[in-house]
Amino acid sequence: MKSILITGCNRGLGLGLVRQFLKISHPPGCLIATCRDIQKAEELRKIAECHQNVHVLEIDLRDFDKYKEFSERVSNLVKDEGLNVLFNNAGMSPKFTRLNLVKPEQLMETYVTNTMVPILLTKALYPLLRKAAKINACKPNGIEKAAIINMSSMLGSFDLNTTGGFYPYRCSKVALNMATKSMSVDLKDDGIIVTSIHPGWVKTDLGGQNAPMEIDDSTSSIVKFVSTLKQEHSGGFYQWDGQPMLW
Amino acid sequence: MKSILITGCNRGLGLGLVRQFLKISHPPGCLIATCRDIQKAEELRKIAECHQNVHVLEIDLRDFDKYKEFSERVSNLVKDEGLNVLFNNAGMSPKFTRLNLVKPEQLMETYVTNTMVPILLTKALYPLLRKAAKINACKPNGIEKAAIINMSSMLGSFDLNTTGGFYPYRCSKVALNMATKSMSVDLKDDGIIVTSIHPGWVKTDLGGQNAPMEIDDSTSSIVKFVSTLKQEHSGGFYQWDGQPMLW
Repeated sequence: MKSILITGCNRGLGLGLVRQFLKISHPPGCLIATCRDIQKAEELRKIAECHQNVHVLEIDLRDFDKYKEFSERVSNLVKDEGLNVLFNNAGMSPKFTRLNLVKPEQLMETYVTNTMVPILLTKALYPLLRKAAKINACKPNGIEKAAIINMSSMLGSFDLNTTGGFYPYRCSKVALNMATKSMSVDLKDDGIIVTSIHPGWVKTDLGGQNAPMEIDDSTSSIVKFVSTLKQEHSGGFYQWDGQPMLW
Repeated sequence: MKSILITGCNRGLGLGLVRQFLKISHPPGCLIATCRDIQKAEELRKIAECHQNVHVLEIDLRDFDKYKEFSERVSNLVKDEGLNVLFNNAGMSPKFTRLNLVKPEQLMETYVTNTMVPILLTKALYPLLRKAAKINACKPNGIEKAAIINMSSMLGSFDLNTTGGFYPYRCSKVALNMATKSMSVDLKDDGIIVTSIHPGWVKTDLGGQNAPMEIDDSTSSIVKFVSTLKQEHSGGFYQWDGQPMLW
């Protein structure tokens, strides 16, 4: 894999993914990490200072009007090689709510961040992904060609929804999973693999301190699994270690 | 069933449901039909003129600030009996689009209409549904107690998504299905049944004239199935005739 773009890298799983992708035996020559406010992304800045292959791009991904300019900045970084991997990681979750407490603003902003951003960013970067897939069509592994990974959640699984509630978050993640499925069909002829991944319940600002899993354990497993992606994984939903999940 | 509220009744399936619910052996004493613009709902107005039990309420359901006043109007109609059935039928669909053509406005407005409206309207009418469920707890059938029916689509099914595309519509309907699942858990103790229904591919403005099914055939089947709803259907996804569907 020559290049990867990961969204939401100021903290949590995004920052963990950056660290782990730098540890693999052949780290990407170009790792693009996005964050909303570079001033608040101190750890990410430090990593970039020590690694010439890490490029931090500041963007509020909810600002769709900026995507054209953003994709040009990405294009300038990956040059003629295209982009191998887009990791749609950035996400948000309002607090748990039962039906009687759900608010329009929560439903709306969670959908924008967790569903619309991955769909529209994929659309914006599609020409770069297609280019990488074409150039590397003969390579054996998915991420050496082109892959889109959507960070989903077990809360977006029908099968595991036995506790109800969580309308904004569950609806946004199941919709993201559906986008994964549609993308896997739409981009199949280009040789681009698309999967949804549940990272586990992880100790992040979003997962809370009661979560059983450390960021490093989740992200190192994800990176290991992602490195093995094949066409047969496209359109599927997997947990951090590659175990298939039911929709 | 003493009362039912159906949204989006100016045409298509909503209008068809109104007609069919008036044809059953014991029609509801109070059938509330909503539409966005009563001036454009000529057929619905004619039905209401001939049926004292039909009440047409004009509301743009995307205007969430009006829900409090709206639920008071509904409460005044159903009085102390509460509301037996809420049929979230109103919906929209942009034209078919592949990934490279999807627009933020489409994703947003389809989610608002197809997902947020049913969730927030259910929240607003929940006290009336709970009242009906409590009063009629001993009745054998679901719709004599209380039921919420969400008009979904096979396009919201992962299992049947073999053709891709349709991001705004597919995402909104799978998210509605997830809301059905969460509601079925959250409202179980109240005895309120919640199901998603795929109406078939029907000759409507939305389905187009190539659709194989007539409105009357779809809506008469739906009314028949809905009349048999039991607790075991809650949290499930069914086609017009009650055949279970995979998520």
